[in-house]
Amino acid sequence: MGATTITLTTDFGTREYYVGAVKGVILETNPDVRLVDVSHEIPSHDILAGAFTVAGACPWFPSGTIHLVVVDPGVGSDRRVLIASTGRHLYVAPDNGVLSLVLLREESVRVFHVTAEHYYRQPVCPTFHARDVFGPVAAWLAKGIAPDKFGLPIDDYKRLALPPLSATENRLEGHVFHVDKFGNLITTVTAEKLLEFQGRRRNLRIQINEEPVSRLVRYYAEAGENELVALVGSSGFLEVALPRRSAAQHLGAGRGARVVLEAD
Amino acid sequence: MGATTITLTTDFGTREYYVGAVKGVILETNPDVRLVDVSHEIPSHDILAGAFTVAGACPWFPSGTIHLVVVDPGVGSDRRVLIASTGRHLYVAPDNGVLSLVLLREESVRVFHVTAEHYYRQPVCPTFHARDVFGPVAAWLAKGIAPDKFGLPIDDYKRLALPPLSATENRLEGHVFHVDKFGNLITTVTAEKLLEFQGRRRNLRIQINEEPVSRLVRYYAEAGENELVALVGSSGFLEVALPRRSAAQHLGAGRGARVVLEAD
Amino acid sequence: MGATTITLTTDFGTREYYVGAVKGVILETNPDVRLVDVSHEIPSHDILAGAFTVAGACPWFPSGTIHLVVVDPGVGSDRRVLIASTGRHLYVAPDNGVLSLVLLREESVRVFHVTAEHYYRQPVCPTFHARDVFGPVAAWLAKGIAPDKFGLPIDDYKRLALPPLSATENRLEGHVFHVDKFGNLITTVTAEKLLEFQGRRRNLRIQINEEPVSRLVRYYAEAGENELVALVGSSGFLEVALPRRSAAQHLGAGRGARVVLEAD
Repeated sequence: MGATTITLTTDFGTREYYVGAVKGVILETNPDVRLVDVSHEIPSHDILAGAFTVAGACPWFPSGTIHLVVVDPGVGSDRRVLIASTGRHLYVAPDNGVLSLVLLREESVRVFHVTAEHYYRQPVCPTFHARDVFGPVAAWLAKGIAPDKFGLPIDDYKRLALPPLSATENRLEGHVFHVDKFGNLITTVTAEKLLEFQGRRRNLRIQINEEPVSRLVRYYAEAGENELVALVGSSGFLEVALPRRSAAQHLGAGRGARVVLEAD
Repeated sequence: MGATTITLTTDFGTREYYVGAVKGVILETNPDVRLVDVSHEIPSHDILAGAFTVAGACPWFPSGTIHLVVVDPGVGSDRRVLIASTGRHLYVAPDNGVLSLVLLREESVRVFHVTAEHYYRQPVCPTFHARDVFGPVAAWLAKGIAPDKFGLPIDDYKRLALPPLSATENRLEGHVFHVDKFGNLITTVTAEKLLEFQGRRRNLRIQINEEPVSRLVRYYAEAGENELVALVGSSGFLEVALPRRSAAQHLGAGRGARVVLEAD
Repeated sequence: MGATTITLTTDFGTREYYVGAVKGVILETNPDVRLVDVSHEIPSHDILAGAFTVAGACPWFPSGTIHLVVVDPGVGSDRRVLIASTGRHLYVAPDNGVLSLVLLREESVRVFHVTAEHYYRQPVCPTFHARDVFGPVAAWLAKGIAPDKFGLPIDDYKRLALPPLSATENRLEGHVFHVDKFGNLITTVTAEKLLEFQGRRRNLRIQINEEPVSRLVRYYAEAGENELVALVGSSGFLEVALPRRSAAQHLGAGRGARVVLEAD
């Protein structure tokens, strides 16, 4: 094939007609694309969860891939429609921060405010921009229309930063911002921050919601039975896990739970 | 690519081997098709939900698309197997009404009762016609076999009408027939009915389960916080929504809830 | 198209970035494949459920298909990475038994222990072998690299047998090992065992958790309303079903429930 790939990440769920309608309109506009589902199970309106999923999945696709991202509680309002180009990839998404995490890690990003309504499907339904706006824009991009044909470059697109870590001399504090399907608790402590904190100190101790974590391991199966461990997950963040079981359920902890690192 | 697309809509869920087996048999019969999932999360045996999903998603696909629809509580019994042609699209489904809503909106429809068993995978498993009957029929259609080669035209295929609205001079009453993933309550009042009802009257008031709806808006984000609103959704039906939250949960309402429109 | 198909079966769920990242890496390595989702909703770490899904779905795909199977509680440990060849298909999976059921039914199987790390994505993240090991191996296989280029043949790969049936003269006892999305209870009694047991006897009686099953039918819709029936499902196992409703819910039964067949 070698066809251009359009990936789809939404909070539409797979019980509804929404995803099918978007795929249909994309293929109607451009029958030569390859459609790849990333996820449609982003919790409804959860921009942070969408941003995390996009950052974990989208950069792995081949150069030239177009990523359609629709977690869009502001649909129909005047929130802007964006195309972001990283050189390797193009992203089409509402301007609400859902691209923040993935763009943060890119060296150079150009962002365009889409206003060329002749690329939309008309009439535009005010409750379904994925079908009438985002999908068609992605399909036209896949036909080779340059991003700057859709609107002017902007620089003030919305950034959604992870809450900053609180750090003192021998203490680093973050919190859980995502619970994955396995019940692993993913925290705001990045691999880089962890390395920096460890670098100068000894006797690392980790607590989550006051509960001690046994130790830092490299992979889940390294832990003993019922041993609560911490590790740097594939997303580049420190996570707390209970191998083969759900740490979230075991601890009764979820998004917002506090993780504290201490050392001497 | 430009390959013929076969879409799949089922109530099989994605936890089971059912969807995979159907896809495998289709590709074994015809390796040149493109498979696109519409939904496999139709509630088990829920023909109305299937009909709603098909009507919302399938018409958007390009001309020549074949839609495989299997919500089939009568599998193995003598319910008929259908091919429906709308000119633009072909549908393959059991004769139980699951195509009703989508066919209602088409100008001209030809329906065939499939009896040419040499297109089935043999032996046919009586509990899995999706794999052995519907899938292969769709795959052969995608090879260009004409619908009338599969059986005779019929006219008495099963229609599943939405329950009629109850209307008096200044009052229109319908009910909720679908709750979507966002908790929006989708009612049997169509955009056309609403327009007609509004056209001759003033001071529109809407209630759902005796609860007053604040007003009619054009899109979700137009509403204030905690403001229960009504709008014509992308499916062409009036829906009741609580922006960024679930109206269903907030009202404790679901399928069957009564919506009443009054005006002067 | 006629492109090589890679199917994906995992316990990653579709809420996370995991599946997207694996698809991205496969397409980056080999843009010419066709990706087909079998299931990502295998219950977390449930090797038996994964094995059942793979056995039910994967054999139906056309010759030359590559099946990627990742249910991998031992990720990062020294459990081996396997390629299994059945002549028609290739499977890539961890060595934990998840391929057992599908390989059991094949006449000739060759299994290789993958050690050629130059086919991996480097650096390999110890918690995400699907992205860095299994995915790339599948993508290289799809490029035509022969299985024996990845490592040496082995014969001691892990088998996961279904628990044996307990049989006496006029009694056969098995148990439920899977509950499907419709609430059907799938038991360890195979079609062959059932035929053999029936062959020599009369007056077959079936009980599940002491509850009598009405009779053996051929398909679901054959049963009357609220009639608990047994039938040989499309997977080749005896299952207990309550047509149009969930037998599991009705009986309060699940995995491990005992099924007893008696006859004269």
